[in-house]
Amino acid sequence: MGQTPDWVKQLKPSGPQGHELLAAERSKSTLPVAKLSELIHTKEVLERRARILEILKSEQVFDKSQNYFKGRIERFEAALARAKKLRSLRVKHGWNLQEYRTASDLISEPGPYGLHDSMFLVTIGEQGTPEQRDFFLKRAENYEIIGCYAQTELGHGSNVRGLETTATWSPQDKGFIIHSPHLTASKWWIGSLGKTANHAIVMAQLIIAGKSYGPHPFVVQIRDLKTHEALDNVHVGDIGPKFGYNTMDNGFLLFNNVKVPYISMLARFSHVDPSSNQYVRRGSPSLVYGTLTWVRSTIVMQAGSVLARGVTIATRYSAIRRQFQDRDAPESEKGENPVLNYTMVQIRLLPLLAATFALHFTGTRMMQMYQQNQEKMSIGDANKDSKRGPGPEETSIGSDILADLHATSCGLKSLSSTIAAEGLEVCRRACGGHGYSSFSGIGPWYADYLPTTTWEGDNYMLTQQVARYLLKSARSVLSSQPPTNDTTRILHNYHSRADIGCAFDILSSDSDIVDAFAWRISFLTFEASKHRDEQKKPWNDLLVDFYRLSKAHSQYMVVKNFHEALQSHDTISQVDSETLEVLKKLYRLYALHTLEQEGSEFYASGAVTVKQISLARTNAVMKLLKDIRPHAVRLVDSWAFDDWVLDSSLGREDGKVYEDMFYRASELNPLNQITVNPYPESAVLFKKDEREERRSKL
Amino acid sequence: MGQTPDWVKQLKPSGPQGHELLAAERSKSTLPVAKLSELIHTKEVLERRARILEILKSEQVFDKSQNYFKGRIERFEAALARAKKLRSLRVKHGWNLQEYRTASDLISEPGPYGLHDSMFLVTIGEQGTPEQRDFFLKRAENYEIIGCYAQTELGHGSNVRGLETTATWSPQDKGFIIHSPHLTASKWWIGSLGKTANHAIVMAQLIIAGKSYGPHPFVVQIRDLKTHEALDNVHVGDIGPKFGYNTMDNGFLLFNNVKVPYISMLARFSHVDPSSNQYVRRGSPSLVYGTLTWVRSTIVMQAGSVLARGVTIATRYSAIRRQFQDRDAPESEKGENPVLNYTMVQIRLLPLLAATFALHFTGTRMMQMYQQNQEKMSIGDANKDSKRGPGPEETSIGSDILADLHATSCGLKSLSSTIAAEGLEVCRRACGGHGYSSFSGIGPWYADYLPTTTWEGDNYMLTQQVARYLLKSARSVLSSQPPTNDTTRILHNYHSRADIGCAFDILSSDSDIVDAFAWRISFLTFEASKHRDEQKKPWNDLLVDFYRLSKAHSQYMVVKNFHEALQSHDTISQVDSETLEVLKKLYRLYALHTLEQEGSEFYASGAVTVKQISLARTNAVMKLLKDIRPHAVRLVDSWAFDDWVLDSSLGREDGKVYEDMFYRASELNPLNQITVNPYPESAVLFKKDEREERRSKL
Repeated sequence: MGQTPDWVKQLKPSGPQGHELLAAERSKSTLPVAKLSELIHTKEVLERRARILEILKSEQVFDKSQNYFKGRIERFEAALARAKKLRSLRVKHGWNLQEYRTASDLISEPGPYGLHDSMFLVTIGEQGTPEQRDFFLKRAENYEIIGCYAQTELGHGSNVRGLETTATWSPQDKGFIIHSPHLTASKWWIGSLGKTANHAIVMAQLIIAGKSYGPHPFVVQIRDLKTHEALDNVHVGDIGPKFGYNTMDNGFLLFNNVKVPYISMLARFSHVDPSSNQYVRRGSPSLVYGTLTWVRSTIVMQAGSVLARGVTIATRYSAIRRQFQDRDAPESEKGENPVLNYTMVQIRLLPLLAATFALHFTGTRMMQMYQQNQEKMSIGDANKDSKRGPGPEETSIGSDILADLHATSCGLKSLSSTIAAEGLEVCRRACGGHGYSSFSGIGPWYADYLPTTTWEGDNYMLTQQVARYLLKSARSVLSSQPPTNDTTRILHNYHSRADIGCAFDILSSDSDIVDAFAWRISFLTFEASKHRDEQKKPWNDLLVDFYRLSKAHSQYMVVKNFHEALQSHDTISQVDSETLEVLKKLYRLYALHTLEQEGSEFYASGAVTVKQISLARTNAVMKLLKDIRPHAVRLVDSWAFDDWVLDSSLGREDGKVYEDMFYRASELNPLNQITVNPYPESAVLFKKDEREERRSKL
Repeated sequence: MGQTPDWVKQLKPSGPQGHELLAAERSKSTLPVAKLSELIHTKEVLERRARILEILKSEQVFDKSQNYFKGRIERFEAALARAKKLRSLRVKHGWNLQEYRTASDLISEPGPYGLHDSMFLVTIGEQGTPEQRDFFLKRAENYEIIGCYAQTELGHGSNVRGLETTATWSPQDKGFIIHSPHLTASKWWIGSLGKTANHAIVMAQLIIAGKSYGPHPFVVQIRDLKTHEALDNVHVGDIGPKFGYNTMDNGFLLFNNVKVPYISMLARFSHVDPSSNQYVRRGSPSLVYGTLTWVRSTIVMQAGSVLARGVTIATRYSAIRRQFQDRDAPESEKGENPVLNYTMVQIRLLPLLAATFALHFTGTRMMQMYQQNQEKMSIGDANKDSKRGPGPEETSIGSDILADLHATSCGLKSLSSTIAAEGLEVCRRACGGHGYSSFSGIGPWYADYLPTTTWEGDNYMLTQQVARYLLKSARSVLSSQPPTNDTTRILHNYHSRADIGCAFDILSSDSDIVDAFAWRISFLTFEASKHRDEQKKPWNDLLVDFYRLSKAHSQYMVVKNFHEALQSHDTISQVDSETLEVLKKLYRLYALHTLEQEGSEFYASGAVTVKQISLARTNAVMKLLKDIRPHAVRLVDSWAFDDWVLDSSLGREDGKVYEDMFYRASELNPLNQITVNPYPESAVLFKKDEREERRSKL
């Protein structure tokens, strides 16, 4: 556009400039930002990221400057172009999967190959036979066939058993007939299906001789490999615009008695014997159990980083945005106050800043534990294979820890993605009016993140699994079995001390805080056990209690893991004692702020007194806000988001907030290439459209 | 498009159809929906709405079917066309302001004339001299000049005193020079300014002979009346895309020493004497005080209806969406369960359903009280005029009630718009995966509503005003002055009984619930008074407490007003006793659910015991959910939203959820007119674009 007049170009923001204000913030603290970044990300990851970022920045197709202005179709178009380029860069630079994922993360938008790259390839790899892997995988890895994973239907989400699509065994053809008997059988929400995929893994009810054997995966071609038009008797398309995720072509898919060959059914764990026409199971997909735990742990760890983007933007902007004077400031200091100085802003942002670290360390430790347990188990398996076999106790502890990890990961997935999603919205609002502009960068990011609260287990549904596990653990403790993992350990401890009570010094002892969280979840668990197992209350009447139970357990896990991470050699060896002290303050802020928010449960459990809760709020938390305040900007700096990644006027590392807002509005905004006719008498809407003129010149 | 194959068109959703499920819901309750609608809206409003709706539906320009698919520029284009048509309909049908507003509400999107129709006309009317009204108003009412209200700047929002734009008195020209000294002086967020307005009311610091007299309003022409191009030394444009509100052209505006004539400064309350070059004040804009109270009361009342759209959609859809079986159901009833039967869904939706009524009745009563007080005051004024004069007590009560109304409306605006905004998001998520689709209708509505939490007083900032008022009231009670309004009455009551304590039977008495809310806010007020007035804590350290104070006071007001509304003759005369009993259950649900959420404050104040809070949660609230559940669909029906207004697949009155989702995706979605080339080797993105073909045929 470039129509900005010279007199405008010469204008600068009033008062101290953004970069001066951020420099002042950074000089208030001596936290070693680079060291802290390494603690969070590791040196290896930071280096990989920097290397790949440079490549991406040099490619015009990844330029983000028009992202916020584009409509649905243009956004999808750009995302498809980027997906193609990313693929060619992968080939060119020989990137491994990790490097490829890093590049996707840096681009920070869902892309049309998203489900091909993940679920399509993974499912064939895990559930296909060697022949099927040969047949499908190579072509898929070369993008000759492009796939997606079609499970969810218009009428069914979380309840996989209720799927309506059928795959009927045809003894004559020795193949299957895929069919959608109802409108609600239409596959729906399927990523990469709407426009991009030519194949789909279709989850369908397997039917042999009129009998249903439950949902099974089928690899089905849906579009012509040349024309890319839908095949006969296949109806497929994009499901339309969404709250976010609009660079992805989530699709629908219906079949009208489509015949597919024998090889379509992924047959590693079960198949139809073509000679006997019988269903045959071979082995069980038990690894899925572990994979889901792994995926959920990843979501926990990512939640910290997802939230950190919003916190980074809001914290930096709050250090620059000035508003009103401090009522009580002496006359000599009556300048306008950066809003980060207001306690009402601090109480919204700093506990979230603490949460970014809490979630990050929790996710990391979950993954470590998972890995350690996998190793233990594989040694166990190896021992079994060598016919020596472990003692019975050893295996039971191993599997009890896995069950604990599984339940824990369900609850933590629910809690952490809820914290991240809701926290982002808090950050957006903490930016005041400008938070509402797309240029804040928070709104679009929030909108794209929201599905995480629904997929890999709906955040409400998952809590029932946690409750079920806790009830089972309570039964085991009540029947005097010895503790086999952390959950039964804390329940056992509570049970043996419930009559004596407890006395936790939450205001002075970091480990007593962990114990108070353990006490409260144990109390709630035995309460729930009483309601369900003794009073036989209906399951449905207890769902709200179960949700609270899961939340309380997950909060305990976050507090415990954060606390342990700060005691670990790994952390202590990487940072100086002053930095460690700031991290401990973040720990206390996260824990005490959570404790105060959930005050009545803590009080009811007897873990703390009302006086302690009140002191936590009015003294401890307020004091921690003051103590952490000077480090806020350096702490968000340590998350090390590049400006290119944040794509935010408000969150710029150099503080040029107003210059960037203005530049985007005045120079980049295509609506400003239009002059309207504003008068109601005229039917003409646009008097002049420079976009048309430009297009016609091309 | 219409490429949907015949075999697809014949498909129906599986199981009981949506209309059957909703019919079953409606048959479970005998609530008289039409009667209840009249209680909420009045017969007059319902009739007006129906009449205007019919007109709008018959005009192609108001067709909503492409709304969710359009990009920013197309949406603005459609909104401008609609604004023009609406204006011509107003002229054609001779609509008064109320009818015009009704039409805008039914269209339910912000439009480019929005600020012209409201703030521009109102401000000239209220703050202009008779000459200025002559000069500007008539042309504005005829849309020869189209205006906006330019207050907020890039660097300043809530703090009006900090505005940077200057209007310097020029003694030579007897006029003013409007100037933007810094980039941050740019007007920003100004509705209708970006593309539409040719005039703006510019709030600028009035400067005479180097001295500043604070912000004053100036009517300034900014675009040429014929070409609609920006005038020389004016830089104006649209600020770019936002989280919502994208049909509105929020704009920016900079001036480079632009001369404007004497008549530009709106001079009803102050002016510059052209002969002496002196600033002259005449009268004070005290009516603004009342107007703001009125505007905020409107926001409170609207909040109920805004939220009711989301609750309507989520409730209807939850009656249709079935998922899993009830674990405890007998084998014979093992069908899939509508999710509205799950307590975890009920606890999210039904308290919000109760909130829609609570906010509606509160807003209505606030407006009644305001009107009554205005009438009283004008009698007082008339008495004063006739030199008789009221007794001193009478006037002080009148103004004390006004002060109370003012503070109350601040707090209620903050609470109610927060409840509505956050409640809408809860409704959206309660719809599960489909809530994320634009076709749910909740997401776009939520996104457009969000600015309400910031404008007419930021929801956080406002709470300081409430706290200030409560502190003042506490001081008055502590100095033994007699109560003059409800606030001082409840504070006085608490103060005189604090030593004795209280014993509220919140589980059996509806009025005791109100008293418990009064007790808690009184307790918190005297606590805050102790911190500020006795211990002299800094204001900034108390902001978080003040926020809680305001929230507690507003919750008391909502509970009190809801309770009173259900006792009033107006209500009792309109509905039968059974309906009244359901409304009372909604009252109890709203009040007890709120009480339980804020349990620790109620407990700390001594208003209730821990046992009572626990019983409220586990017994009373759960019982109320069960009792209200059968009436849920009829209750949302009584809000009487037309399908055309809701524009939601999930919220359809006839329950055709899946048919409508599918129709919009398969038939209306323009992305499905494109066939892509999905292979990474090819630089071609679109193989075929039927939109192009169609366009070239035109």
